[in-house]
Amino acid sequence: MTSTLAERVLAGDPRAIARAISLIEDEDPSGADLVRAIFSRTGRAYVIGVTGPPGAGKSTLVDRLVAALKAQRPHGSTGSPQALASSPSKGTVSAGSRSISVGVIAVDPTSPFTGGAVLGDRVRMQAHAADEGVFIRSMATRGHLGGLARATGDAALVLDAAGTDVVIIETVGVGQDEVDIIRTADVSIVTLVPGTGDEVQALKAGIMEIADIFVVNKADRDGADRLVSAVEGNLALHSYPSGEWRPLVLQTVATSGHGVVEVVEAITRFRTHSEGAQTVRRKARSEYRLRELVSKRFMDHLERDVLGAGELRSIVDRIAAREVDPYTAANELLRRAIQSPDQLPNQLPDYQVTRSPDS
Amino acid sequence: MTSTLAERVLAGDPRAIARAISLIEDEDPSGADLVRAIFSRTGRAYVIGVTGPPGAGKSTLVDRLVAALKAQRPHGSTGSPQALASSPSKGTVSAGSRSISVGVIAVDPTSPFTGGAVLGDRVRMQAHAADEGVFIRSMATRGHLGGLARATGDAALVLDAAGTDVVIIETVGVGQDEVDIIRTADVSIVTLVPGTGDEVQALKAGIMEIADIFVVNKADRDGADRLVSAVEGNLALHSYPSGEWRPLVLQTVATSGHGVVEVVEAITRFRTHSEGAQTVRRKARSEYRLRELVSKRFMDHLERDVLGAGELRSIVDRIAAREVDPYTAANELLRRAIQSPDQLPNQLPDYQVTRSPDS
Repeated sequence: MTSTLAERVLAGDPRAIARAISLIEDEDPSGADLVRAIFSRTGRAYVIGVTGPPGAGKSTLVDRLVAALKAQRPHGSTGSPQALASSPSKGTVSAGSRSISVGVIAVDPTSPFTGGAVLGDRVRMQAHAADEGVFIRSMATRGHLGGLARATGDAALVLDAAGTDVVIIETVGVGQDEVDIIRTADVSIVTLVPGTGDEVQALKAGIMEIADIFVVNKADRDGADRLVSAVEGNLALHSYPSGEWRPLVLQTVATSGHGVVEVVEAITRFRTHSEGAQTVRRKARSEYRLRELVSKRFMDHLERDVLGAGELRSIVDRIAAREVDPYTAANELLRRAIQSPDQLPNQLPDYQVTRSPDS
Repeated sequence: MTSTLAERVLAGDPRAIARAISLIEDEDPSGADLVRAIFSRTGRAYVIGVTGPPGAGKSTLVDRLVAALKAQRPHGSTGSPQALASSPSKGTVSAGSRSISVGVIAVDPTSPFTGGAVLGDRVRMQAHAADEGVFIRSMATRGHLGGLARATGDAALVLDAAGTDVVIIETVGVGQDEVDIIRTADVSIVTLVPGTGDEVQALKAGIMEIADIFVVNKADRDGADRLVSAVEGNLALHSYPSGEWRPLVLQTVATSGHGVVEVVEAITRFRTHSEGAQTVRRKARSEYRLRELVSKRFMDHLERDVLGAGELRSIVDRIAAREVDPYTAANELLRRAIQSPDQLPNQLPDYQVTRSPDS
């Protein structure tokens, strides 16, 4: 069942991709099995992260980027040696076998009022459904402690394994979670918008440090030049050693498409510039995800294999009653978990990565 | 040293409070020791969470709330039985021994360009420094996996132990991290602002579900009524069982102070309404923090006591080379950590909560 799904994902079947991402989103164990099965076939897609505050026009910008990327032919057949949709590191993939060339994962906080993706995304996804070679998927915010970053990363792996050339991860917000998601992309784009209060707010959001490219969208609005100046002014405070990428500041009007080609060109420039740094960044991404995963597995083990039913709740009650402090309670729980080697984690089969033969 | 600091915190010494929060922010082990030492003296303060997108005027609103709260005399001496700054559940605290009655923790993402809190916050903190009984502190975003929520929670405990009646936690952003911080406050206020794009953006941010009170700030702007209608419209889609709190939607112009008294009244109404639910919420907060803490301690143990130097890095290298998938690697790491009972965590002294005698 799962291996069939994996095979269909590797063949680029959009329905299999959608099914796989649903399993991942639902934290179904077979989602992890699927990622295991396809993992050796990943690492080829270029991952673009796009974030920014609500109302910055990210969705429209991403839609325009998708169209511009689609206009590029894969494998440099446009004659441009820097076409983003080419796969410079691998030459063995047959373009003909690929049904999806651009994937979008729109991270979309769940609202209890809608039960999932809001209307705007549904409309948007339908608009793209007929567009062959484009896969758009909203993912909802669920769980804590990096669950969203994990699910987003696994969904990107699915698209990667399916032969997608470019994966765009789009998040709403400027919180730590978005920063964690976006900073591990191959290139990070931060969208800003003029006129949402004083410009320092844009800089308050911890986003200066993660942007490879700033895009001031809705640049036909009053204050666009002032916002560009503010961002440039902040960049000027930072010294970029020779050879280090200095973030670009671009302007777009996504609704009309103005400036979008320049964004694609900037992405291509960044990709060319950072071929070496990309490996470092991908390792950082792997490390972040590994830590998060180990931590999650440990908590599952603690609650399932070590603690009795309701025990965690009773400890919480004792904390609430101020009978024990959280640090002492945490140490006690940790001690019990690692001193119970006879209670080994269940459901941790010895998976080995099966290297699929190159097709 | 630490016990002296704890004593000074319990006595309400602002410099000791500042020092304690710095230790917590820096993840200094003595910060955890301090929390242990003061924990039995916490649980009295009422915690107000304020969040919203950048540019919504949260800082100004919070400043106005502080002033309005300060205008209330503690212990219902205004004659109002619902004065928020009173401590209805405890009658033994001497108001005279208290030097801080309102504390603000402004969660402020670190920018590498400034090395910490941005200029706006520094200016703001200075403006309040002379205001006796008010403690304002910015905390920077550092680390991953709930580090910010932990630090914010511990800082609130410090203010609580120092006798602060009301702690306001203010975060910029609408991401999962902010949601996690704010949803565990005693009351959650979500600020919105008209005219930052289509109103659905406000609802996209996963914030509908966490708000007890919506505040449409800058309500003198065009579009304020439309935004209020959009929020009310969404609330109307949800059925609130009899006795359940239905979120209020208020309008303010924080720069002029318009509507701020109504916000304080709404907080007081919510507090009165939710005396029972508050216990449930505080337990949820304790549980969240306990999980996060155990998880953090486990990772520290894994890296310090189980893995050899550079071993995690070499596993990451193998993942990057697609020799092993992250799920298999995570299971292997977990297995090793819990099968190594001879390698017990260091630096986990057997602390007991010392119950301080009531003063």
